[in-house]
Amino acid sequence: METSDIRVTQTELETFCLRVFRHFGLPEEDARITASVLVAADAKGIASHGVGRLGRYVEGLKCGLMLPNAAAEVLLETSSSIVIDAHGGMGAPVSVKAMKAVIGKARTNGSAFACVRDSNHFGIAGYYARLALAEDMIGVAMTNTAALGVPTFGRLAAFGTNPLAFAAPADEEHSFVLDMSTTVVPRGKLELYDRLGKELPAGWAVDKTGHPAKHAHPLLEDMQNQLGGGILPLGGLGTAHGGHKGYGLAVMVDILCAVLCGAPFGTAVYDTPSSYARVSHFFGAINIACFRDPREFRRDMDRMLHSLRTSPPAEGEERVYYAGLPERERESEILKRGVPLSKQTYSHLCSIAAGCGLEAPKSC
Amino acid sequence: METSDIRVTQTELETFCLRVFRHFGLPEEDARITASVLVAADAKGIASHGVGRLGRYVEGLKCGLMLPNAAAEVLLETSSSIVIDAHGGMGAPVSVKAMKAVIGKARTNGSAFACVRDSNHFGIAGYYARLALAEDMIGVAMTNTAALGVPTFGRLAAFGTNPLAFAAPADEEHSFVLDMSTTVVPRGKLELYDRLGKELPAGWAVDKTGHPAKHAHPLLEDMQNQLGGGILPLGGLGTAHGGHKGYGLAVMVDILCAVLCGAPFGTAVYDTPSSYARVSHFFGAINIACFRDPREFRRDMDRMLHSLRTSPPAEGEERVYYAGLPERERESEILKRGVPLSKQTYSHLCSIAAGCGLEAPKSC
Repeated sequence: METSDIRVTQTELETFCLRVFRHFGLPEEDARITASVLVAADAKGIASHGVGRLGRYVEGLKCGLMLPNAAAEVLLETSSSIVIDAHGGMGAPVSVKAMKAVIGKARTNGSAFACVRDSNHFGIAGYYARLALAEDMIGVAMTNTAALGVPTFGRLAAFGTNPLAFAAPADEEHSFVLDMSTTVVPRGKLELYDRLGKELPAGWAVDKTGHPAKHAHPLLEDMQNQLGGGILPLGGLGTAHGGHKGYGLAVMVDILCAVLCGAPFGTAVYDTPSSYARVSHFFGAINIACFRDPREFRRDMDRMLHSLRTSPPAEGEERVYYAGLPERERESEILKRGVPLSKQTYSHLCSIAAGCGLEAPKSC
Repeated sequence: METSDIRVTQTELETFCLRVFRHFGLPEEDARITASVLVAADAKGIASHGVGRLGRYVEGLKCGLMLPNAAAEVLLETSSSIVIDAHGGMGAPVSVKAMKAVIGKARTNGSAFACVRDSNHFGIAGYYARLALAEDMIGVAMTNTAALGVPTFGRLAAFGTNPLAFAAPADEEHSFVLDMSTTVVPRGKLELYDRLGKELPAGWAVDKTGHPAKHAHPLLEDMQNQLGGGILPLGGLGTAHGGHKGYGLAVMVDILCAVLCGAPFGTAVYDTPSSYARVSHFFGAINIACFRDPREFRRDMDRMLHSLRTSPPAEGEERVYYAGLPERERESEILKRGVPLSKQTYSHLCSIAAGCGLEAPKSC
C-alpha cells in the first residue's frame, strides 16, 4: 500500500467489474460471481489476483480463449464425485458450481471431490476452499496453470505455479486458510524485479542453462519464447533446501486437476502473449462431523491458532501469524477505507472503461 | 552408501526385526508388519527411517510409550470415515489397518479418510499411500511428529516435521509417490552436521533468538531442553522463499491428523530423550474410477512421468527425476545386492540382538 494509492469502495469496484463482464456478454449471475471473486482478492490485499488482472480477462474474452456464455457440462457424476467440462467458459462461475456440488455431496456422503476441465483463470483458490467453512467442512481447491516451473535438476518449465488452498474452520479465531502457489514465487514477482531493474534473489529461478537466474528480463523473454528457464519449485534450487518437495507438490496438483479428468497437463498448458491458458481445477470437501463433533473441532482449532499467533516472535520480528490471518486483518482495514489501487491499476481500469463505453470506478 | 557398508539381505533383516518384536511381546502379525515397514525404508535407500530406528522402538517398548499388544479401538465409523484410537500401540499395524479400511470404503463410497490417534512412529508415510496403487486409487498418508519446526517469524518450535505422502498409479512408468516432510530437513540432518562439526547451511534452522542457527550442537541442546530454536518449514527463513507456505503445510498436516480426531497437536507432542512421542496419523483413498477409466488415467500418468524424467537436465546435472523414481531405482539395486548398513547401524543391531539374547543379522 503506497500513500499515492487510490481508494475505491469494494461495492464500487464490484459494480464496475460486473458492468464490464455484462458488456462482454456474460449472463448476469456469472458476471456477478466473476466480479465478486476478482474483488475478493483485492479486499484481502492480494492485489496480484485482483482487478489488476481484469485486462487479461478482457483480452481473453475478445480473443475467444474465455467464452462468455459457454454451457458447463457434467461429464460424470457419482455420490462422491463430479467431473465438469467448462467448455472454455469463465473460471469463477463453474468453480463455485463445482465447490457447491462437492459440499452438497459431502453433506450426505462424508467427502466428495470435483474436477473441472477446459476452464479459465479462477482467481484465488482460497475463495472456493472457504465456501466449505460455514458448512462445518474442510475445503480444498487447486488449479493448474501455464507451465512456468522448472523441475529439480532441470532447465525447462514443466509445470505451473499450481496453487493449492486448504481451509479449516475455527470458532473465535479466524479460520485457517492456506492459499499458496507451489513454486517459490509467482511470475508477477519476476516481472516486478524486471521493472525495478533489481537482481533476482538466489533460489527463485533458473535460466535456460539451468543455472541460477540473476536477471529477470532475459529470463522472462526466454520463458515467453519457450527457450528454457523458469521459476523454481518451493524449496528452491536442487535438493539441499527441499526443492524436490515443492516440485512434487506441483506435480500432485497437476495430477489431481488434470490427469484425474483427462485434461491437458504440464507443458501442454501455456498462456498466449495477451491471455491465460485454458486450465483445470480440483475441489474437495470433507465433512468434519464424520470424525468428531464440529463444535469441538472448532474449539481445538481456536486453541491451536491462538497458540500459534501468540508464539514468541524472533528477535526483530513483531508477530507470528497463521495462514489466512494477515489477509483477514487487511480485509477489516480495507472494508473501512476502501480497496487500495496503484495508479497503474487504476488507469488500467479507466482505459478498460473507455474501451467498453463505461464510466470508470470512482475513488472514495 | 559407503564402500565400508555391510550388506544384509532384506529377508534376513526382516526376520531379525520380527524376532526382536516377538521378543518384546508383539502379536505375530503386528511384529511382521512393523518389521516389514521398517525394512521397506532401508530397501528404498531411506536409511533415516529404517532399522537405524530399531533402538528407539526397543526403548519405546521398554519404557511403555509403545505398547506391544494394545487393542486398537474404533471410536467412530461411517461409510466414508473411520477414527481409530491406537491406545499407545505400535504405529505400523494400526496404520495398515486404517489404510486398508479407507481403501475398502473408497471402493464403494468413492473416497474415504481415517484418523488414528494415540499411536506411535509409523515409519515411512509412503508405505501406506502406496497401498492404494494396486486398487486404482490415489493414496494419501500423513502423521504429526514431536514439535521441532519453528513458525515463520517465530523462535519456538510449534509443529512437527509433519510428513505427507501422496501416491498415484502409472502403467509402465513407476508410480508417482511423493513422501516428504514439510520442514526443510529432518532432525537427523542436524544431528549429522553436529557429528561432522560442520556449520549448518543458511535456511535450515533458527536458534533460540529466532536468528539463523549456524551450530548444530547448541541448537540441538536448546531444542531438547525446550528453550527455543528449531528447524525451519519448507521454504526457509521468513517469507522471501515461501517459508510461510511450508509452515502452512505443516499446520495442515497437524489439523488433519490431530485436530480432526481430538488428539494432541503442536507443542503437546514431544519426544522423550530415549523414545518417540505418541502421535496421530491421517490416511485417505480416492477411487479413480469415479472420475475416469483408471486405464486411461494410468496411460496419462505414463505420458506425464515419461515427459518429466526425459526433461533436459540443467548443465552439470545428469537427469531429472520424479517423486518416487530414485527410491524405486535404489530398490532394484538393493534387492540384488542386499541392504547397505553403515558400521554404526550394524553394530547398533548387534547390541540389540545381544540385549534380547538373539543372533545378530548375518551379512551377505
